[in-house]
Amino acid sequence: MAAKPNRSTRKRFKALFRVYLGDEIALGPGKAELLAHIGETGSISEAARRMEMSYNRAWLLVRTMNRCFKKPLVHSSRGGDQHGGAQLTKCGQQVLKRYRQLETKFAGAAREPLRDILSHLKD
Amino acid sequence: MAAKPNRSTRKRFKALFRVYLGDEIALGPGKAELLAHIGETGSISEAARRMEMSYNRAWLLVRTMNRCFKKPLVHSSRGGDQHGGAQLTKCGQQVLKRYRQLETKFAGAAREPLRDILSHLKD
Repeated sequence: MAAKPNRSTRKRFKALFRVYLGDEIALGPGKAELLAHIGETGSISEAARRMEMSYNRAWLLVRTMNRCFKKPLVHSSRGGDQHGGAQLTKCGQQVLKRYRQLETKFAGAAREPLRDILSHLKD
Repeated sequence: MAAKPNRSTRKRFKALFRVYLGDEIALGPGKAELLAHIGETGSISEAARRMEMSYNRAWLLVRTMNRCFKKPLVHSSRGGDQHGGAQLTKCGQQVLKRYRQLETKFAGAAREPLRDILSHLKD
């Protein structure tokens, strides 16, 4: 009862998309965000900082992605050294673009059923 | 590199959809599956058995759903007693149908970008 809470914060929806190769998560929301930050900053350590993630963790995620795909998604000029630069490869750019498309296309397709489900939730 | 593993099992994709009310998960894949089994079996305990879940756990999930939506999704004839029957309410049927639509519409919309991402994964 009390004051009516803000609807927009109380009712939320999350969609999570994950691609697996065997037991490994080749790509998911965290790895996609990391790719985007590496693309923007040209640096794994800066991307890690933006995500409040340790450099080691970010580097582990990059290694997992590079191992799962036919071609590396990230090229690091000094083999993971914090002070070297890093860029998305052409394959990395393509895979990130397609992952973003998954999210966008889902948002479009989901609009109607989602609106209906949310309308049944308490305010 | 030994025998080539089965592509269909090595490359996998998962999409997870969750609806929140405040901090509670009002609906997600597990709750949707539970609703479907309750609808089919007319029994929370039988639905729980099918999902290899304890009756208490299933009942907890049902209570959470019923609390989050404006109208209950499940009507249990003896207030959760194992031996009473249970049915999906009209609202429960509608919400489950819409959740399934989310999954179906996503599968359609995701086909092309997903095929491309998977084609970049190692075989």
